[in-house]
Amino acid sequence: MVNFRRTHDCGSLRKQDIGSTVRLSGWVNRFRDHGGLIFIDLRDRFGLTQLVFDPVKDPETHALAASLRSEFVVTISGIVCERHTGMANPNLATGDIEIEVKELTVLSKAKTPPFSICDETIDVNEELRLRYRYLDMRRGDIAKKLVVRHKSMMAVRNYLDSQGFVEVNTPILGKSTPEGARDYLVPSRVYPGSFYALPQSPQLFKQLLMVGGMDRYFQIAPCFRDEDLRAERQPEFHQIDMEMSFNTTEDLFTIVEDLVKYVFKETIGVDIPTPFKRIPHHECLERYGTDKPDLRFGMELVRLDDLAAASSFGVFQEQVKVGNSVKGFCVKGGADISRKNIDEYTAFVGQLGVKGLSYMKHTDGQLNGGIAKFFTEQQLKEISARMSVEPNDLVFVIADTKERTNQALDHLRRKVARDRNLIQPGRYELLWGTEFPLFAWDAEEGRIASEHHPFTSPHFDDFHLLESDPLKVRSLSYDLVLNGYELASGSQRIHDSEFQQKIFEILKLTPEQIEAKFGFFVRALSYGTPPHLGIALGFDRLNMILSDTENIRDVVAFPKTQKASDLMMESPSPVAEAQLHELRLSVQEELERR
Amino acid sequence: MVNFRRTHDCGSLRKQDIGSTVRLSGWVNRFRDHGGLIFIDLRDRFGLTQLVFDPVKDPETHALAASLRSEFVVTISGIVCERHTGMANPNLATGDIEIEVKELTVLSKAKTPPFSICDETIDVNEELRLRYRYLDMRRGDIAKKLVVRHKSMMAVRNYLDSQGFVEVNTPILGKSTPEGARDYLVPSRVYPGSFYALPQSPQLFKQLLMVGGMDRYFQIAPCFRDEDLRAERQPEFHQIDMEMSFNTTEDLFTIVEDLVKYVFKETIGVDIPTPFKRIPHHECLERYGTDKPDLRFGMELVRLDDLAAASSFGVFQEQVKVGNSVKGFCVKGGADISRKNIDEYTAFVGQLGVKGLSYMKHTDGQLNGGIAKFFTEQQLKEISARMSVEPNDLVFVIADTKERTNQALDHLRRKVARDRNLIQPGRYELLWGTEFPLFAWDAEEGRIASEHHPFTSPHFDDFHLLESDPLKVRSLSYDLVLNGYELASGSQRIHDSEFQQKIFEILKLTPEQIEAKFGFFVRALSYGTPPHLGIALGFDRLNMILSDTENIRDVVAFPKTQKASDLMMESPSPVAEAQLHELRLSVQEELERR
Repeated sequence: MVNFRRTHDCGSLRKQDIGSTVRLSGWVNRFRDHGGLIFIDLRDRFGLTQLVFDPVKDPETHALAASLRSEFVVTISGIVCERHTGMANPNLATGDIEIEVKELTVLSKAKTPPFSICDETIDVNEELRLRYRYLDMRRGDIAKKLVVRHKSMMAVRNYLDSQGFVEVNTPILGKSTPEGARDYLVPSRVYPGSFYALPQSPQLFKQLLMVGGMDRYFQIAPCFRDEDLRAERQPEFHQIDMEMSFNTTEDLFTIVEDLVKYVFKETIGVDIPTPFKRIPHHECLERYGTDKPDLRFGMELVRLDDLAAASSFGVFQEQVKVGNSVKGFCVKGGADISRKNIDEYTAFVGQLGVKGLSYMKHTDGQLNGGIAKFFTEQQLKEISARMSVEPNDLVFVIADTKERTNQALDHLRRKVARDRNLIQPGRYELLWGTEFPLFAWDAEEGRIASEHHPFTSPHFDDFHLLESDPLKVRSLSYDLVLNGYELASGSQRIHDSEFQQKIFEILKLTPEQIEAKFGFFVRALSYGTPPHLGIALGFDRLNMILSDTENIRDVVAFPKTQKASDLMMESPSPVAEAQLHELRLSVQEELERR
Repeated sequence: MVNFRRTHDCGSLRKQDIGSTVRLSGWVNRFRDHGGLIFIDLRDRFGLTQLVFDPVKDPETHALAASLRSEFVVTISGIVCERHTGMANPNLATGDIEIEVKELTVLSKAKTPPFSICDETIDVNEELRLRYRYLDMRRGDIAKKLVVRHKSMMAVRNYLDSQGFVEVNTPILGKSTPEGARDYLVPSRVYPGSFYALPQSPQLFKQLLMVGGMDRYFQIAPCFRDEDLRAERQPEFHQIDMEMSFNTTEDLFTIVEDLVKYVFKETIGVDIPTPFKRIPHHECLERYGTDKPDLRFGMELVRLDDLAAASSFGVFQEQVKVGNSVKGFCVKGGADISRKNIDEYTAFVGQLGVKGLSYMKHTDGQLNGGIAKFFTEQQLKEISARMSVEPNDLVFVIADTKERTNQALDHLRRKVARDRNLIQPGRYELLWGTEFPLFAWDAEEGRIASEHHPFTSPHFDDFHLLESDPLKVRSLSYDLVLNGYELASGSQRIHDSEFQQKIFEILKLTPEQIEAKFGFFVRALSYGTPPHLGIALGFDRLNMILSDTENIRDVVAFPKTQKASDLMMESPSPVAEAQLHELRLSVQEELERR
């Protein structure tokens, strides 16, 4: 048997190893035949090491080296030597040394790969990368992100373990609960016509663990949603799922803040200051137009309703009269934004249904241009004061329905930040969004619906509004927002079975629906349930931020496409008729014929 | 809002806390009204604390306490007091103290539970326990086992992380590969008529991670098998899945031995000596009749073919003549086994297809009774010598086909050990079974089949037998056996795509079958694959041993029954017609009508 046991990996040899005899195993990365000497960069996940083959000192090994091709797997032994003067590579950890190879064995040959592996800078079509994911991994970037993911899992577990949380694996073969997104179903063979469902989250299980007295639970839980995928979603994903008994929201905030701090420090060495900011939902909408604002840059929204009503601009007057919103924000130094750019921004907000985008610039000592002419000097001064406008700033203003104004200004604010490079790399801004409404009006269904989920407790101060004005009731739920992404969502749960029943009734679920969907759960609550609360953090999302990528597929080892298919495995795929027969299932024929 | 934040849990107060004011929250476990004083044991996962309510000192709180019932959730504050002389409870960690309650609030009421929670010794029907799993957890035993499970997960991860293994989550929505057990299928909505399959193991993915250069991988991987369940199986289970490149079997043995040692130490404080024994497969069958022997007791099997042939016992002579086996074992002090017991053992092996069970006893200075009369004095001496028979021992002998003799003696050996209490509690005997055959004859299919799986490498010394005598080829695979259970199974993998192709051909797979099942995988191997090997340890099985239970459902939070149903969630269950319609599926009508 060939000896391929390494003394070192390809990233670890240094000056102090010079003179040692070593064995390395890895992949042929680059091959350079300089007439006489052959240089090969040997690669593994840990780095690159330069090998040298000398035709004079060892013609046989040199000849074998000449036959190597990219991606062959080899094992070598040799002596660590200093690189010749001027040949050291300061960009490489092993750049001071090279190996004079004494012995070379080919462990595996390789066909020519469909894309270059040694040249990470070449941009390869993502579909091809996914089809050959194992080759994509060798290019280094994905492998690094998977290591970050591993480190972050270790950090999460070690931190939560230290806080008395117990990781419990909840079932993956669960039950279909037709709330929320679409379930993936799994047909039962033992009970034909019955199905399991893959969990969208372990919500009921984690609450049942609290009913069972487990006190503090967590899980890096696999979850599933059969949705039409957006770029940042996968049909299967993981969440850091937590639940705790006899604790308050303050306890939960502290634990999650310390958890996030610990994970960033352990994984990428970044210090995150705690505690995080807190902004109630209504204030957040007012100041940023969204419940998940990106706080890495300013440009807070400012309300101008009163000034708009008093202006001579008919459009503004009209909007205020019908109860709509006039709001805007100030772009520091934005006076350099050209007319053409402004037209592009106008088209951009137009796609969000907003008819116009107004602006003014602070030039020549005052606000000028655009809509400035509709305001008195005094009014312009007031606008400048409210928005802290300084010379060379630009002001954007939108007047539309409350929702559209907020949405358009939120998008515009983020676009301007990107366009003007206002986002400092390596900056992390965290925020608790609090006091979300408990219910929202579901126009399609013609009834109120839970904003978070039906197990969320109302705010203790708002119980009296439940019957009279349910849409005014705040909930005890909270979102954690990181750089404009919703990273986590949690709440105080209802721990009284009769009150839970009442909430279902407010949601206009019939007794039969309650029994079919949640009967066993309401029963469970009735046997003595502790006050409990919990949260779930998007683990893939967290890793996107830790690994500084906007592509969720970069932080998943074997991701699926936006059509939920695995290009490498060619899955999903047809199965044998016998398998379907055992499940007593048939695929509808009109579709088979398609 | 009620203050329910605890200063202590219910298991932590001691003598040195006497005089402190504390707040506890938990469940009413036992209630004793001694005319005047009311005593309540307050319970949580961490223990019990005695509360005292005094009608004279605080009549109002006493009256509220009188209204409490079992399993109510309450929060109290009070003063830690020493128990009166003679009232301390040495069996309880908090038995020296009690709390004089100053304030009591009911957090949740509770209906009368369907079985007693405070009395752990009452044996409750398992079906009822599963239906009310959350109440079963409160009884303590299941909760303790879940904490052991959590600790063992932490230990596995911390140990493997320290050895450079990277945990990678492989897909749960995988591809159906009709080798091995039955897959759970998941219909695809996007591609009607196509299916994902839940993984029976991440075998292909972990090998692809090695092809991708990840070097060392592990995962506590959720796996799924749609099998008719035996007691120690669940449709979903976890395995500690590992794979490593450029390492040898010796490396793997060392890592797994140290991993097991670490997990036992960290989880239950037990020292496991390493290295483990190793026994080649053929020797294991010879000495124990099985490839997973329980080494916690002796009674090794001894071959008696030659003596049986030379005896005057026609049955033995005949069995040896047709090439069958005569083997037996010695039961120390077994002369006390009655005729009636021997008849029961004979019936026991009869159920395994064996016609007779012979015996002799060493009494009056020699082997006597049973089949002793068929042997000469010299032959009896030889039998005694081979089996180390001493006075008052008993010898069992079976003569049948090689397979039946081995199987029956294995079962008999284990039954005798249980019946005679030969198994010392808290003893752990580990063993590597090595040199398994690469192939086995599949009589049903009329072809040879992989013993382990088709990616297993032949033993390096047996390559020359592949074509000429494949059933003689040993594999580079190994099982780890713990107390008679197969705890792990692993192997060196084939890392050459052409050789992998050849193995598929020996297995009589057609080129079309190879392409359909493993095409992408054979292609992956052809781009430069490192030598790699791996193993998977049954994580639930490991936990059964750590928690000293023979019931796998005891180490799973929300287990399924042997019919794969979740009694608590009532899953699997019918789903809405609309859900099936979206998947273009129909349940076959003749079955719907059943």
